Amino acid sequence: MERVDRVYVGLMGLGVVGSGVAQILAEKRDTIASLVGCPVEIKRVLVRDPARAREAPVAPERITSDPGTILDDPSISIVIELIGGEEPAHQYIRRALAQGKHVITAIKEVIAKHGPQLLELAEQKQAAIHYEASVGGGIPLIAPFRQSLLANSISALYAIINGTTNYILTRMAKEGLDLADALREAQALGYAEPDPTNDVSGTDAAYKLAILASLAFHTQVAPDQVYREGIDRLTARDFRYAGELGYAIKLLAIAKREEAGIQVRVHPSMVPGDRILARVDGVFNAVEVDGDLTGPIMFYGRGAGSLPTTSAVTADLIELAREVRQGTSRSRATQSLCLLPVTPMEEILTRYYVRMSVRDQPGVLAQIATILGGLRISIASVIQKESDETAQVAEIVLMTHLASERAMQEALRQMAALTTVAEIGTMIRAEG
Amino acid sequence: MERVDRVYVGLMGLGVVGSGVAQILAEKRDTIASLVGCPVEIKRVLVRDPARAREAPVAPERITSDPGTILDDPSISIVIELIGGEEPAHQYIRRALAQGKHVITAIKEVIAKHGPQLLELAEQKQAAIHYEASVGGGIPLIAPFRQSLLANSISALYAIINGTTNYILTRMAKEGLDLADALREAQALGYAEPDPTNDVSGTDAAYKLAILASLAFHTQVAPDQVYREGIDRLTARDFRYAGELGYAIKLLAIAKREEAGIQVRVHPSMVPGDRILARVDGVFNAVEVDGDLTGPIMFYGRGAGSLPTTSAVTADLIELAREVRQGTSRSRATQSLCLLPVTPMEEILTRYYVRMSVRDQPGVLAQIATILGGLRISIASVIQKESDETAQVAEIVLMTHLASERAMQEALRQMAALTTVAEIGTMIRAEG
Repeated sequence: MERVDRVYVGLMGLGVVGSGVAQILAEKRDTIASLVGCPVEIKRVLVRDPARAREAPVAPERITSDPGTILDDPSISIVIELIGGEEPAHQYIRRALAQGKHVITAIKEVIAKHGPQLLELAEQKQAAIHYEASVGGGIPLIAPFRQSLLANSISALYAIINGTTNYILTRMAKEGLDLADALREAQALGYAEPDPTNDVSGTDAAYKLAILASLAFHTQVAPDQVYREGIDRLTARDFRYAGELGYAIKLLAIAKREEAGIQVRVHPSMVPGDRILARVDGVFNAVEVDGDLTGPIMFYGRGAGSLPTTSAVTADLIELAREVRQGTSRSRATQSLCLLPVTPMEEILTRYYVRMSVRDQPGVLAQIATILGGLRISIASVIQKESDETAQVAEIVLMTHLASERAMQEALRQMAALTTVAEIGTMIRAEG
Repeated sequence: MERVDRVYVGLMGLGVVGSGVAQILAEKRDTIASLVGCPVEIKRVLVRDPARAREAPVAPERITSDPGTILDDPSISIVIELIGGEEPAHQYIRRALAQGKHVITAIKEVIAKHGPQLLELAEQKQAAIHYEASVGGGIPLIAPFRQSLLANSISALYAIINGTTNYILTRMAKEGLDLADALREAQALGYAEPDPTNDVSGTDAAYKLAILASLAFHTQVAPDQVYREGIDRLTARDFRYAGELGYAIKLLAIAKREEAGIQVRVHPSMVPGDRILARVDGVFNAVEVDGDLTGPIMFYGRGAGSLPTTSAVTADLIELAREVRQGTSRSRATQSLCLLPVTPMEEILTRYYVRMSVRDQPGVLAQIATILGGLRISIASVIQKESDETAQVAEIVLMTHLASERAMQEALRQMAALTTVAEIGTMIRAEG
């Protein structure tokens, strides 16, 4: 390849992030030119409806609704793909890579589902696909895995990677709000979508975990291999008890390397209060990575928003534009993939918090202890809370030692069947 | 340059980190070869005394005491410089770069004093100098500044970058230990050197801050431009009062971009308890960076030790070895340096905590308030603590609103001159 005097970019999608990218490229034109060694120019911007007025600083004649004017233009060497959803974004990315263009994307769904194949295609075509913005907004996460941490064998990662749910959980913990109230507040502040299902159910976090776990363990984790449980069963009372027991409740995305395979799961977790992850509050994200050389390290920051995402896209752009400028093509570190099996959920070992309503009468605890003992689950602590004398109902909160998920699920079934148990309220797994 | 089938490395220094690197390169030989695309081999190891038996996995015939056998060997394309101190390491690095060899170093003193010149020399010679291991052990810090955060204007960084002092301060805070006891404990555990001056005085942190601030602000900060104050005046009582006031006391390295220049300073700081930096305990390090796009982001982990440092050196090695393998030479992002002036310490504005012993008699507080008022320093809160009736001495702890360092230093002089003030105990600046 030859050196060029100007790097042309095609921008696909002009929503919140796309507009942010166009604006930053205009505002920081000189800095970026100095870092790259020549100007970087957006040649074409793909939008659905070119007639709609745009606030982004893009000249009208550069706006197009025809993807071919970007994908088939040989002068465009870098495509920034910011159309949400799986298709047609995925096909556009394939077409761009197939023609040897570099691709930068923020679309987690595409990378989670097709990342390893796209990386392979890029390698074949001596192109690159960068996706720093797909997880954790402006927090450097992908680059560290692809570079700074390469010498490590990673044993585990624990991540708070959905700002919406972390905001909701923080408000429930700090203000004693119910889920519905905290959610309404998050929506009013723009931290939650009108339809929050994707966030609240753990789906968004599962996509991101699939991306991170694939990188961390040099494997391919499909999003539907990630066990997921949302935050919708948590109550204000659980937060009160968690506090008393010295825990925070977080929606954790967890990936662990085991001898035979990997665990990948997203669910509410009890995090010991002295772990720094327990202190990650509000819309902030954090990813803790345990490497054999580094020990635990953590990356923390705002995981979403137009500006942080723009930061990540622009950093990827500067790096790739510099290669285009110099006419070099740097092969990436692609450790040979090894398809690791995902451990079935019922085989994991963890500790459990269980809150249940029982008849306020003698012998109930003995029944519960008998069930748990029969399944070889040891109780670490048990607290009887808040009897309601009129209803003759008491609340029992217990924490177990390490137990298997299979045994715990069976215990929950047997306990729910007891006539003395009115309701199993919440079960939360405890980490660390 | 041409592709090669084997990358030869010269290792200078076989102390704790050097041995760690040799060992990891042996243990992870296959992984590294697969990431690089060919084997990476240590061809020569420089030591002071080749006769001394070595535990590191290096064949005796590769050991040398002659630096020329590394620096003048054209087959060696990467030099890993791990000899401590400024010289001769600095001259070895210059010689290696001048011959177009890539250099990797963990020596903060050399980078803090000569980093920008070495980067310039490297650029001229189409070589690279990488120094991820010089700050923060295995935490990716240098790479993010040189890559992931490039699109940002950085306004400030707040860092806990000396594990020894953070361990000591944590023990003083949690166990009520005095400095001497906490230091002895740190020494017994190997967290502090027999002569701990470099750490306790803030010198080590100042080197690291000079490196980080130079990167963050695209300037050159010399270590002796960094204002530094050690932890030696802190007492167990200060930690008790800080706790009551809702603060943690940390040795912070602070760099701030101001309109006219930059602040660079290392000193004990009151950190509000709700900031995540306040929760960074023990030997852990953390660096918070405030970017205009990212907002606050934080990097956290073990800042020292053989394995974390080896992680950083090896990551740098994989990246550079890949370039050697491919015969490409990637120019780095070097934004044109702009020599920013360092704001004199007396011109900074911050808040202050002052603890002093006074005669336990009426009117003392009025005298103090008069001095502060005359210098336009507003008191945010004042607490009179622990009178000692026999000695007729009381302790006053006050927090100010924002005030200039010049005014505060003058106030301390005037208060110390009062006959009613027995002693100014501690002054600690408060951040955030």
